[in-house]
Amino acid sequence: MPVDDATLSKMAQRLRRDCLESTSEAGSGHPTSCMSAAELASVLFFEEMRFDPRDPSGRDQDVFVLSKGHAAPLLWAALKEAGGIDDDLLTLRRFDSRLEGHPTPRVPWVRVATGSLGQGLCAAAGMAWARKVDRSEGRVYVLLGDGEAAEGSVWEAAEFASFHGLDNLCAIVDVNRLGQSGPTMYQHDLEPYLSRFRGFGWEAAAVDGHDVKAVKDVLARSRATKGRPFGIVARTLKGKGVSFLENKDGWHGKAVKKGEELGKALAELGDTSVAIKVEPRRYPPSRPPASAEPRVEPAYKPGQEAATREAYGAALATLARTCPQAVALDGDVKNSTFSEKFKEAAPERFAEAYIAEQVMVGAALGASTEGKIPFASTFACFLSRAYDFIRMAVYSKPSHLVLCGSHAGVSIGEDGPSQMALEDLAMMRGLIGATVLYPSDAVSAERLVETAARTPGIVYIRTSRPKTKVIYDNAEAFPVGGSKTLRSSAHDRVTIVAAGVTLAEALKAHEVLGKDGIAARVIDLYSVKPIDEAALRKAAEETRGIVTVEDHCASGGIGDAVASAVAGRTRVEILGVRDVPRSGKPDELLKAYGISAEAIVAAARRLV
Amino acid sequence: MPVDDATLSKMAQRLRRDCLESTSEAGSGHPTSCMSAAELASVLFFEEMRFDPRDPSGRDQDVFVLSKGHAAPLLWAALKEAGGIDDDLLTLRRFDSRLEGHPTPRVPWVRVATGSLGQGLCAAAGMAWARKVDRSEGRVYVLLGDGEAAEGSVWEAAEFASFHGLDNLCAIVDVNRLGQSGPTMYQHDLEPYLSRFRGFGWEAAAVDGHDVKAVKDVLARSRATKGRPFGIVARTLKGKGVSFLENKDGWHGKAVKKGEELGKALAELGDTSVAIKVEPRRYPPSRPPASAEPRVEPAYKPGQEAATREAYGAALATLARTCPQAVALDGDVKNSTFSEKFKEAAPERFAEAYIAEQVMVGAALGASTEGKIPFASTFACFLSRAYDFIRMAVYSKPSHLVLCGSHAGVSIGEDGPSQMALEDLAMMRGLIGATVLYPSDAVSAERLVETAARTPGIVYIRTSRPKTKVIYDNAEAFPVGGSKTLRSSAHDRVTIVAAGVTLAEALKAHEVLGKDGIAARVIDLYSVKPIDEAALRKAAEETRGIVTVEDHCASGGIGDAVASAVAGRTRVEILGVRDVPRSGKPDELLKAYGISAEAIVAAARRLV
Repeated sequence: MPVDDATLSKMAQRLRRDCLESTSEAGSGHPTSCMSAAELASVLFFEEMRFDPRDPSGRDQDVFVLSKGHAAPLLWAALKEAGGIDDDLLTLRRFDSRLEGHPTPRVPWVRVATGSLGQGLCAAAGMAWARKVDRSEGRVYVLLGDGEAAEGSVWEAAEFASFHGLDNLCAIVDVNRLGQSGPTMYQHDLEPYLSRFRGFGWEAAAVDGHDVKAVKDVLARSRATKGRPFGIVARTLKGKGVSFLENKDGWHGKAVKKGEELGKALAELGDTSVAIKVEPRRYPPSRPPASAEPRVEPAYKPGQEAATREAYGAALATLARTCPQAVALDGDVKNSTFSEKFKEAAPERFAEAYIAEQVMVGAALGASTEGKIPFASTFACFLSRAYDFIRMAVYSKPSHLVLCGSHAGVSIGEDGPSQMALEDLAMMRGLIGATVLYPSDAVSAERLVETAARTPGIVYIRTSRPKTKVIYDNAEAFPVGGSKTLRSSAHDRVTIVAAGVTLAEALKAHEVLGKDGIAARVIDLYSVKPIDEAALRKAAEETRGIVTVEDHCASGGIGDAVASAVAGRTRVEILGVRDVPRSGKPDELLKAYGISAEAIVAAARRLV
Repeated sequence: MPVDDATLSKMAQRLRRDCLESTSEAGSGHPTSCMSAAELASVLFFEEMRFDPRDPSGRDQDVFVLSKGHAAPLLWAALKEAGGIDDDLLTLRRFDSRLEGHPTPRVPWVRVATGSLGQGLCAAAGMAWARKVDRSEGRVYVLLGDGEAAEGSVWEAAEFASFHGLDNLCAIVDVNRLGQSGPTMYQHDLEPYLSRFRGFGWEAAAVDGHDVKAVKDVLARSRATKGRPFGIVARTLKGKGVSFLENKDGWHGKAVKKGEELGKALAELGDTSVAIKVEPRRYPPSRPPASAEPRVEPAYKPGQEAATREAYGAALATLARTCPQAVALDGDVKNSTFSEKFKEAAPERFAEAYIAEQVMVGAALGASTEGKIPFASTFACFLSRAYDFIRMAVYSKPSHLVLCGSHAGVSIGEDGPSQMALEDLAMMRGLIGATVLYPSDAVSAERLVETAARTPGIVYIRTSRPKTKVIYDNAEAFPVGGSKTLRSSAHDRVTIVAAGVTLAEALKAHEVLGKDGIAARVIDLYSVKPIDEAALRKAAEETRGIVTVEDHCASGGIGDAVASAVAGRTRVEILGVRDVPRSGKPDELLKAYGISAEAIVAAARRLV
């Protein structure tokens, strides 16, 4: 039942009132950034989108992503007026409120946390892609600011969306002319936005974002467009509706003062007594996508040589065949990370993101909100390109998000430092609640893929380029937070903690030290975070010191993790890369940067 | 003296031979990615660019950036044939060679390390901008691959370059159709590249990249274009010139086998006996830009309240006035980071990068190659957007690159987790050789800006949102690697290590503990990396344990740094954020996440 334009316009005014009141009560926030988009929100929530205010799952419904996250009060207001939430809007930004300063999934209608600009469209593209995979009907709407269109990630999302033919995706840019610290690059010139959307393969149209009828019409055009996504470039005024805010500089991120100032603003909005009952509107029920418990079947022989990245690919292939909720995304290195094995087995659930790591990760996160277990893989060093996306994913609390970084460390050899991840462990350990896994042989690699697929939240798997010997039995289990003590005796004098390619060095060092009568314990720290505190503290008590050795910068990685875990219970010698590395042969580089068996032996001798 | 087309074509064939031979000798590398761009390199190095093969400084010369860094052998070959280097090309990728697998500044012609795609144009834009600032004449040429055009950062650079009118910048895209793991998104369709350049405000033209005359002509057009940058979209064939490589899939990153296979390839190239003497060509000598020793003049009163971010702005303003080689870049948050103070004092040396952190950092790095001391500032959490750029900057070994991240930690309050940097210390500590500084009051903030400006390489300054009390004398010095012991006695039983906003909490805890008869040492760890090992080890020996407290994730930051530095000499209790935070008042949040004075007191009691 269509709502008439006058009522939608009045609802826009009501949303403005809600935003002014809630931010004034909070004493902070971005009311003017909400006011520019009030008609857009009114038409979306009360006319265009098909959704059921009682069910935030998004199943067989249209969904909405607020990419310009600082307009959170507008989202809270629209949800409240539509009957999706019953929170008191005046609790905005309070510690005891779900209505945070920027959207987080504490409110279940929020599928991904936003507030770092330029990310919403990436996630939305992932949702739209997953819906294409599932052949489910609901559309994905995303509201962006004009300022955030400066982020390159927006255009990565744009190319991803057009390349994958996501005609179930509609992006609306709220061109309100004013950024945080001044006017935007193009102010009210809509042409650059239109030509970019078109240059990136989208259908695009300009609209007066305060003209309810025009907004309805362009959304109808968007819904009717097939084969490509649709971009709406809406000319708006920041602070629209209140004379002393409207189109005025200096009002970004500033609440109107309670009392007289607020009263004046609200008076200008006029009569805002309106209610629109949102009837549940859903698409015909679609068949729930199939799912199965993730399982891998490693089948290696002891001593067999295989790179952990190859084993990662083999495990992905198994999941592709047996776990229908698994999907994979690549940054044009699938033949190096071996995620191409997934593509071979299940091309329809594989998304090529080309050399655009931000949308690769953002789209993976979006896919996770559609019930997928996404595996996004690239060289570990290039995941640093998407660090802000991974950081924000923490706040999205995804059911699953598996990131795999291959080619870790100097052991990649001749390609040189630009391709060597030496900071990925630091970056992943620095994320609250993330799981960091680091296999050392093919069996542990496959098993850790299985572990990752079963672990909620963000899981990082670090794989290596060189082949390493298989040391584990195919049936060995690798739970999160565990470790493997590979060598130990009643008279161990020193402990060596290693993972990945340095584990073989540790085992070599164990031999050398043994010949000298120094018994060394060797621990495979395959779970870098959470870390096996019990095993490490036991080693701290039973041996005179711990040598850690990692193909990573000496700061932020395994050494730090172990030193923090033992927290002073024993001496710790950290071996890691301390100088800028260069091209060379892998073994040459392990030696040159002090993470070879020889370096371990020397460090162990210093401790005993 | 112009070189005739036939000779330039022959030089292209010679470059192909060089690349085939050097990669075959190395047994790895990307010969086919070099071969597509051989005519482009030939015309650039032997005809178009004005440079002096004896002087890699770039001063009063055109400069070149190889953004598609995997084509390094082509750069080495062009430099060798032009007389810029005399290295043996056959040492490519060897540990003892300067000729690494991807360009690094071990060869002085390389201004910025490349190999992480999509970064070269950002750096080049920064160089071109710095040359505009200096009114110096040399142009900046950058060669990109088609695959890397998928990176959003390329378009951030594009908008930066057109917005700032960088008509001294020319980008050439080598559209060779084939990426690493398959065809690129648009293969040989040049239209998307052209329309994007134009959509981002560039002049753009297509060309047959193997037609020497056409390439010359389009470069001449580029040179003649005023007011905007110029993009050349060159259609090429990967592996051009050798039948079994040309336009063939499966040859990315693969060397031709020495012996018969190489022989066959070289035979197809025909006669490559050519030499072109590159005469030194320079622009008229420009006046060297002025420079002065960086100095700040803090003038605070003890107990005065000021945020470290405000002091950062004040220090920048002083540098803007007194240190002409200082420049500043912003990501549209200059009114929050207070870098606007620099803009007010020296608008001509201030670049607004809008909400595009990758080009902000990339351009800052580029500016550093022109002798600038760049200060790039945004919210600390948004520097994570540019982490790959910061990582690569390590390998560029910049003379100076100062990054300032404001709004660190939960103490920002109501805006919520998306705006709270909780992983920035981990990310910066994970960089080899980076300096990480963290002021706690206005004096230390200003002094650390001075320290940063005098420190070579990458320096990160972490500032805070809340106001804190001035505790230092204006004349206090804050050298890199130092710390300040603010409270100590002969009978200290515990040490508290803090920095930034937690320092005030530590001082409060000191009072509370003192009343209980527990003497606590308090250390301000303003230099997080390098760390003051001596002071910490002394504290480890003289007290029963160390409590660290930081407004940061409990992993990867100050706690880890201290635990690693004391390496088991005493117990360490790490207080940091362990749960996903939410909106709230700053004090409320410090308490809720266990980094307030109360939490410190409790931890100290556990240790004594």
